[in-house]
Amino acid sequence: MVLYIIGLGLGDEKDITVKGLEYVKKSKKVYLEFYTSLLGGSMYIDKLQTFYEKEIILADREMVESGCEEMLELSKTEDISFLVVGDPFGATTHTDLMMRAKELNIEVKVVHNASIMNAIGCCGLQLYSFGQTISMVFFSETSKPDSFYDRVKINRQYGMHTLCLLDIKVKEQSIENLLRGKKIYEPPRFMTVNQCCEQLLEIEELRNEKAYDANTECFGMARVGQDDQLIVSGTLQELVSVDFGTPLHSFIICGNMHFIEKDYYNLYNIKNLKK
Amino acid sequence: MVLYIIGLGLGDEKDITVKGLEYVKKSKKVYLEFYTSLLGGSMYIDKLQTFYEKEIILADREMVESGCEEMLELSKTEDISFLVVGDPFGATTHTDLMMRAKELNIEVKVVHNASIMNAIGCCGLQLYSFGQTISMVFFSETSKPDSFYDRVKINRQYGMHTLCLLDIKVKEQSIENLLRGKKIYEPPRFMTVNQCCEQLLEIEELRNEKAYDANTECFGMARVGQDDQLIVSGTLQELVSVDFGTPLHSFIICGNMHFIEKDYYNLYNIKNLKK
Repeated sequence: MVLYIIGLGLGDEKDITVKGLEYVKKSKKVYLEFYTSLLGGSMYIDKLQTFYEKEIILADREMVESGCEEMLELSKTEDISFLVVGDPFGATTHTDLMMRAKELNIEVKVVHNASIMNAIGCCGLQLYSFGQTISMVFFSETSKPDSFYDRVKINRQYGMHTLCLLDIKVKEQSIENLLRGKKIYEPPRFMTVNQCCEQLLEIEELRNEKAYDANTECFGMARVGQDDQLIVSGTLQELVSVDFGTPLHSFIICGNMHFIEKDYYNLYNIKNLKK
Repeated sequence: MVLYIIGLGLGDEKDITVKGLEYVKKSKKVYLEFYTSLLGGSMYIDKLQTFYEKEIILADREMVESGCEEMLELSKTEDISFLVVGDPFGATTHTDLMMRAKELNIEVKVVHNASIMNAIGCCGLQLYSFGQTISMVFFSETSKPDSFYDRVKINRQYGMHTLCLLDIKVKEQSIENLLRGKKIYEPPRFMTVNQCCEQLLEIEELRNEKAYDANTECFGMARVGQDDQLIVSGTLQELVSVDFGTPLHSFIICGNMHFIEKDYYNLYNIKNLKK
């Protein structure tokens, strides 16, 4: 019996691989990881269920972090699929899940797929010219984590591009509800390119170590790998006010661009879009 | 009419996505990019042709670098598929192809898939802890390009892991045949983990800047994303003599490992394998 951990890619229900679909079809139960980057909510889930002709069980943060015990238990006697948007190894929790399965001697098969970590290559920047990826989290009045700043500074110092993964808040509780032990969740929030630009500029102003500035060349991207994908390049300041539409958004701070990369920067430039 | 640029993923004919397969099925002609990382040669091509029920035209380095003119011309009036092992944006030539298509006003649709750049996450190291990727090319008596050394040094200085893409020589001509204008090609060569380790040690000895040493922790990986995938961790010195079997091989030089990463390092360790 096998636990299949299957990447769904970045788009719709047809971005699963042929092999992945075969495994889903022969699985006794199908779980869908439901919080790291799931979009479209119930509409997406309905599409998957229709396409697979299978019921899907939602695995939320609590279930995954509490060890997926039921799922692992079932995997000892049945074929089980665990579906993940993007590639299975985009998030730490799945690495953790695979380790637990191995400890229980459960056979695991992984079906890889595209993730934002490689699909951003479609903007024309070369993947091997990227340095370390950063995560940009929502700032609050009391918390403005700026550990990303040092990474961007190092990347740019050595001419490398920086991919910024933008924060997603799904199934978060307000402090009030958390304190009261009420399982009431806030509506999901997805960071926009604009918010990312503003936070970057805010931290540069505070730190003032010239890791980047308002004129630094960047790419804003939305819905990468989907039909209505949008790519716009421009300076950090210019991208503050571009409307990228519905989530997910991604952001790239450019390092030194090679001439083909520069051609792409010009192709997608905000100035050309306005023509 | 559309030019579909479709990633095939890393494994067999069933690693194409459902969407990618639909596009192949409705294409008038199907080209397969044939030199950046194609394995299994004619066996692989036969499998694809049988699975697609379509003839496949091989696009070799000459065709792609000379601009794929015939293919682009056809794309103006017919649906055409251009297949690429891994993800379409793994190699510079495809970025170049898309730019040419855009200049000719040909509609391009990209179907993403897994590539080595994200699939290496399966070794348990976190993708966002990787620095810049390096390419390791075959050394010869007269040429030992060591520009990778500075990148590894920077990555390790900041605790980041380094993915090493290992050289592939397909359809290369000997200098003799090249000078005589004979289109006779050498058998394909794929760098092994062992050769990579040896070259790394050779350059460290020459440069002696302590970017890494024989005791540096590493992962050797073979056939990532395929059924007989192999992952072995160990020191650079230890991995010199491990037999990783048939190509493709990949290599990772570790930076600082987080505790879950360390668990995976131990799980795949050469010492455990020998038990």
